[in-house]
Amino acid sequence: MEQSSRPIGVFDSGIGGLTAVSELKRILPNEDIVYLGDTARVPYGTKSRETILRYASQDLEFLKRFDVKFTIAACGTVSSVMAGESLFGGLCTGVILPAVAKACSATKNKKIGVIATVASVRSGSYERLIKQRSPEVKVYSKACPMFVPLVENGYTYPGCEPTALIAREYLEPLRDEGIDTLILGCTHYPLLSEIISEVMGEGVTLISSGAEAADYAKKYLQENDLLKKEDAPGRLRFFCTDSPELFRENAARFIDIGGATVERCDL
Amino acid sequence: MEQSSRPIGVFDSGIGGLTAVSELKRILPNEDIVYLGDTARVPYGTKSRETILRYASQDLEFLKRFDVKFTIAACGTVSSVMAGESLFGGLCTGVILPAVAKACSATKNKKIGVIATVASVRSGSYERLIKQRSPEVKVYSKACPMFVPLVENGYTYPGCEPTALIAREYLEPLRDEGIDTLILGCTHYPLLSEIISEVMGEGVTLISSGAEAADYAKKYLQENDLLKKEDAPGRLRFFCTDSPELFRENAARFIDIGGATVERCDL
Repeated sequence: MEQSSRPIGVFDSGIGGLTAVSELKRILPNEDIVYLGDTARVPYGTKSRETILRYASQDLEFLKRFDVKFTIAACGTVSSVMAGESLFGGLCTGVILPAVAKACSATKNKKIGVIATVASVRSGSYERLIKQRSPEVKVYSKACPMFVPLVENGYTYPGCEPTALIAREYLEPLRDEGIDTLILGCTHYPLLSEIISEVMGEGVTLISSGAEAADYAKKYLQENDLLKKEDAPGRLRFFCTDSPELFRENAARFIDIGGATVERCDL
Repeated sequence: MEQSSRPIGVFDSGIGGLTAVSELKRILPNEDIVYLGDTARVPYGTKSRETILRYASQDLEFLKRFDVKFTIAACGTVSSVMAGESLFGGLCTGVILPAVAKACSATKNKKIGVIATVASVRSGSYERLIKQRSPEVKVYSKACPMFVPLVENGYTYPGCEPTALIAREYLEPLRDEGIDTLILGCTHYPLLSEIISEVMGEGVTLISSGAEAADYAKKYLQENDLLKKEDAPGRLRFFCTDSPELFRENAARFIDIGGATVERCDL
């Protein structure tokens, strides 16, 4: 098969990576996408570096079977922990570098905030990569471990009081530092954008790591002449390691997967 | 080795089962205990029946290697999903039957509430087993998926507002049904006892499924002459599938593990 006709691979610990798929569908409607959510072992963000690396290599191996032309590790935790690992060489991007690039060009007062999972913040990758790119930028990081369960349980509607309370607890210290740009370093967080903006104030730019990774993928495919030539709507295939019915049910919060197939797989 | 000298096995998806270990240590201080927490795949309560069964058999297999004389599946989710499965034949108890027995004898107005994970409530096991024992009892079940992440992130102190809000949302419907007994069907929930009691009112008896399972184990061992004969403090060994350091850190919320060893294992 011609290389440009091959699918794009996207994986995540669960369903958060669907924020990247949603953006891909919008900007590259003709591309075929194979998505893997490791729902039998979700979440990754509370686990150790070693365990996350082991799971991520299995995820990547699975997607290789589909002869993907490009892969997005649409999981902030995997991206942080693997930043600099050789597995990310070649036709694959995590969600960190695209988000870091966007944040560094967006900040005016040179103060960037990063919110992410415990494992991501522990890795220090966001901070390190921002400093590499813009040494003058000050970085303020905060782990927000309650955000993933809140999103997965639907506590995302505007005015949702438990989420607002927890968001204030996590975010007020960042707001008080005067940051003007905030990286949503976990692909679940864009579903909390409104609540996050309410705490941070309108002057703070929110960067969605999943959406930035999708934009990066588009640019990469364009520059390397890898965009699909056929002018027909792309096919979506979803795989998960736990029940497909549960996946379908939970995915609805992130994306309309319509009639696409959802299949169970073992890693 | 004489059978009575062998250790008691306890397992859970993560650290919630330590509420059973804590009770075992209190009522059977001389017994050796081997604990397994499947922390690399925690939580189980949001996953499908098939995946939970697969994980639970691997957990049980692991404990068998230590020649355990009795095992507690100290995980409400595993116990519900496996209720009636052959794996629970013989020298093993889940946390459901002991909790159900206690609740049925505690209720005066014949109205029992059950709170547990999504998978536990979906299984219908609590309801079925209560009805088998006391057909006249009415059962009101409610899945409380936010309670595990709230406990694991330390939102357990009295007056904690996000937890109180979510507890009211989950529990007020049960309170309004007039139940007088509430089974805490997940071994994490005893850490929220105070907040739960505040919503339910003092007249409602809370049943801790982990503690009841420990009591059941003691009775079983007594009746079968399997209690340890040696009069010396029992040895605790902890195993987990993710990082031992993380385990030690998180376990502190449940139990003082002192100088006991914590080792990583693969399942």
